[in-house]
Amino acid sequence: MRSLVLIGHGSHLNGDSAVAVYRYAELIRERGLFDEVIEGYWKEEPSLRQVLKTTASTDVTVIPMFISEGYFTETVIPREMGLGHQGPVPPEGIARVIGGRTVRYTLPYGVHPSMGDVILARAREALPDFNAQDTALIVLGHGTTRNENSNRVIYQNADRLRESGLFAEVHALFLDEEPKVGTWPDVVRAPRVVVVPFFASEGWHTLETIPEDMGLTGTVTTFAENPHGAQQVHYARPVGTHAAVADVILHLAEEARGAGGPGGDAERGHEAAWQAFLERARRGLRVGEMMIMPERGVFELRHMLDEGVPGGELATLVTPEGLRDRVRFTDGGEHRPVHTLRNLPRGWRAVLSEADLRRAVHYTYPAVVEETYAHACHALRPTPWATTARRQTGIYAKVQKATPDQVEHVARDVCSACLRTRLWAGHKLTHSFLDGVPGGLPCAEACTFVVAEVREEVSGKRGAGGGHSH
Amino acid sequence: MRSLVLIGHGSHLNGDSAVAVYRYAELIRERGLFDEVIEGYWKEEPSLRQVLKTTASTDVTVIPMFISEGYFTETVIPREMGLGHQGPVPPEGIARVIGGRTVRYTLPYGVHPSMGDVILARAREALPDFNAQDTALIVLGHGTTRNENSNRVIYQNADRLRESGLFAEVHALFLDEEPKVGTWPDVVRAPRVVVVPFFASEGWHTLETIPEDMGLTGTVTTFAENPHGAQQVHYARPVGTHAAVADVILHLAEEARGAGGPGGDAERGHEAAWQAFLERARRGLRVGEMMIMPERGVFELRHMLDEGVPGGELATLVTPEGLRDRVRFTDGGEHRPVHTLRNLPRGWRAVLSEADLRRAVHYTYPAVVEETYAHACHALRPTPWATTARRQTGIYAKVQKATPDQVEHVARDVCSACLRTRLWAGHKLTHSFLDGVPGGLPCAEACTFVVAEVREEVSGKRGAGGGHSH
Repeated sequence: MRSLVLIGHGSHLNGDSAVAVYRYAELIRERGLFDEVIEGYWKEEPSLRQVLKTTASTDVTVIPMFISEGYFTETVIPREMGLGHQGPVPPEGIARVIGGRTVRYTLPYGVHPSMGDVILARAREALPDFNAQDTALIVLGHGTTRNENSNRVIYQNADRLRESGLFAEVHALFLDEEPKVGTWPDVVRAPRVVVVPFFASEGWHTLETIPEDMGLTGTVTTFAENPHGAQQVHYARPVGTHAAVADVILHLAEEARGAGGPGGDAERGHEAAWQAFLERARRGLRVGEMMIMPERGVFELRHMLDEGVPGGELATLVTPEGLRDRVRFTDGGEHRPVHTLRNLPRGWRAVLSEADLRRAVHYTYPAVVEETYAHACHALRPTPWATTARRQTGIYAKVQKATPDQVEHVARDVCSACLRTRLWAGHKLTHSFLDGVPGGLPCAEACTFVVAEVREEVSGKRGAGGGHSH
Repeated sequence: MRSLVLIGHGSHLNGDSAVAVYRYAELIRERGLFDEVIEGYWKEEPSLRQVLKTTASTDVTVIPMFISEGYFTETVIPREMGLGHQGPVPPEGIARVIGGRTVRYTLPYGVHPSMGDVILARAREALPDFNAQDTALIVLGHGTTRNENSNRVIYQNADRLRESGLFAEVHALFLDEEPKVGTWPDVVRAPRVVVVPFFASEGWHTLETIPEDMGLTGTVTTFAENPHGAQQVHYARPVGTHAAVADVILHLAEEARGAGGPGGDAERGHEAAWQAFLERARRGLRVGEMMIMPERGVFELRHMLDEGVPGGELATLVTPEGLRDRVRFTDGGEHRPVHTLRNLPRGWRAVLSEADLRRAVHYTYPAVVEETYAHACHALRPTPWATTARRQTGIYAKVQKATPDQVEHVARDVCSACLRTRLWAGHKLTHSFLDGVPGGLPCAEACTFVVAEVREEVSGKRGAGGGHSH
């Protein structure tokens, strides 16, 4: 039995941030090579602190969904996931045994040699008949003074593709570093050019900066008066959103496993938590704002406030992913980075098999079943604020300066709208949803949303709190 | 059968605004002269638009809880309550038949002649042994250029108290108008002075402006070097918060009724709504976020998320007023001017007799039972936004300029967190809590909270919306 975990950055503000990770998880899930594919995030849920608990097996491979090595892959992710490692990750990845699970952590997908295939795939989309006679390829990187590795990856990919002999020329150019992208007319001689941005996603750089620096007016632009004669530039979409990245992820996962083997077993605590949950769900259960009703072999899930609404008047969802996409936003259309805030949208019902129920609940209230069960078994250890604060680095290091009053002020604003009971602040949770109290959910430590708000508080950037807006 | 309605201003921001009205309502309720005493507000709930529907009898006396006549008593209240009257209210008040109810609307309490008794009561508190030999009385008004009536009331009270012969001198002075309060040392000759602020409540003026203008350092201040020799000033609390105002309210109510008579009957629609409600409550009912459970002759009310929590772990409330005071604030301590926002606090249970249940539900979800029942009977007529906008005056008149997009933008932010379904925007409510759908509550027209937000939107003062804080 094997679990694959894809780690994304996520966002407290932007609901689209997690979508690329969802997509790759789905592509890999469809191939059936892993018993489960779980997503985890720095700024969404399940968080880096929670995600391992949500995996079903004792054999877990963790892949950072980043295009290059850096602060997140070398510092934040290993620290938050408790991998006992900091700094550059060796090519073979690192392996640790954490709470009964063997966890393998790999390099980010973007540094894998098979990214050359993704570059080629993007080039082919932009110019299907590219060839070694008249076509140049530009692999375009961001370039940065902070991390040399990301440039090395661009050069390595360019070198490999040059050796492939598929193009007349191959160049590595950069946005923020020499050789700069704007110099392309000086270095490219071929009459046709394919430009592939080695970027994680479509965004300001791929949509604005690069076209501007290159003088492009569309995805295909002809330059009649260039130094080497008329040239035609074909502008590809970024590599990081191509479906072929799923293959790169699978390569990484296989290599991390080394010789392979039989895989792990079902992790016992995890299995016990979900068995306890399912047993109760079969009798009908309310968890948070959601009610789960068994109905002729399937389960119907809906918002408690929608109890009794005829099914036909609600939007009917039939997959865990459909439910996930519905509960990602409030009824007002706002992104929900914290799923236990009391703003679960209304107006839907999900009809699911028992096999799908688990993933559906995981998407709606990530890590809640595992943490609540652990709490019931006295196995959920709260992390006091001081410990959470001490762990922070980078722009969040300053939360260590927060006074207890400032932390409490933020918690009063933010956590009072959350279903969870703050064990980390000494509050007691005596009855949980597993005992029939829908709103009884534990909170073992301050989430990144609270940490970010405390940072604002310390910086004096938070308002007086209160007011409406939400 | 007779209903008394006390109308306060209320506030979208300040939870203390309504407290004085609550207090008078309770004092009058205790006397048992009215079958019910209901509070209504301009900026809280039940709103001026809703409050008449919430009265049980066909004989309703409405008293504006304002210290002077003005924009609210002459324009806003009559308009919002549909009294078909604008401008000065005659001394005998006005009477109208509205939807089967006889409604009597009186002058504000502050202009009633018996306010002299309240001034005397405050003077006696500040200086118990005042007398006609050595004590001067200053009746202190705000003074304003906009409404002459409020000054006339101050002079009338001063005249009457002068005629009473209880004081050596009686003066009428003003904060913002001649004769100004700062001139007191020139006009007062008596060695002892009682100053009674003719103000509605303790606030910036009574706590800061008046003491400063008079040179006071405490509630009793001695001036050794005044023009007329040593003088001692005794500073009383404002008249508007004295318990004796309850007597003034009763005088007003009695006078409005004229010769009296047998009183009204139970209003049929109202009675039918509550009978329908009670019938369902006896079987157990969920309304909004609250659940109502019949239990051995009493009812237990609590937040749905607290279902199953042992009673001993919740704060137990045993009166409708106790529940009212608890649900006035969110779990984060914020004021809840709109009771149907999805932020009902948790952690309490109310144990109430059937006789008290009605008032408890009225306090928790004002006008919801009446409006939902009316909706079920096809008798709730939605007011389109354009009509609501056209009605606005004063600083709110500018909402007439709002585009449909602006209104929808505000509604998306504000109303999406509200339980009610916006009939006024064409949304349909097919099932209500009376049919077993807890979250099914109708919204017949934009509330003052939405109107105020639209005003901000038109003024360009609203943020992008979204974000957390709530």
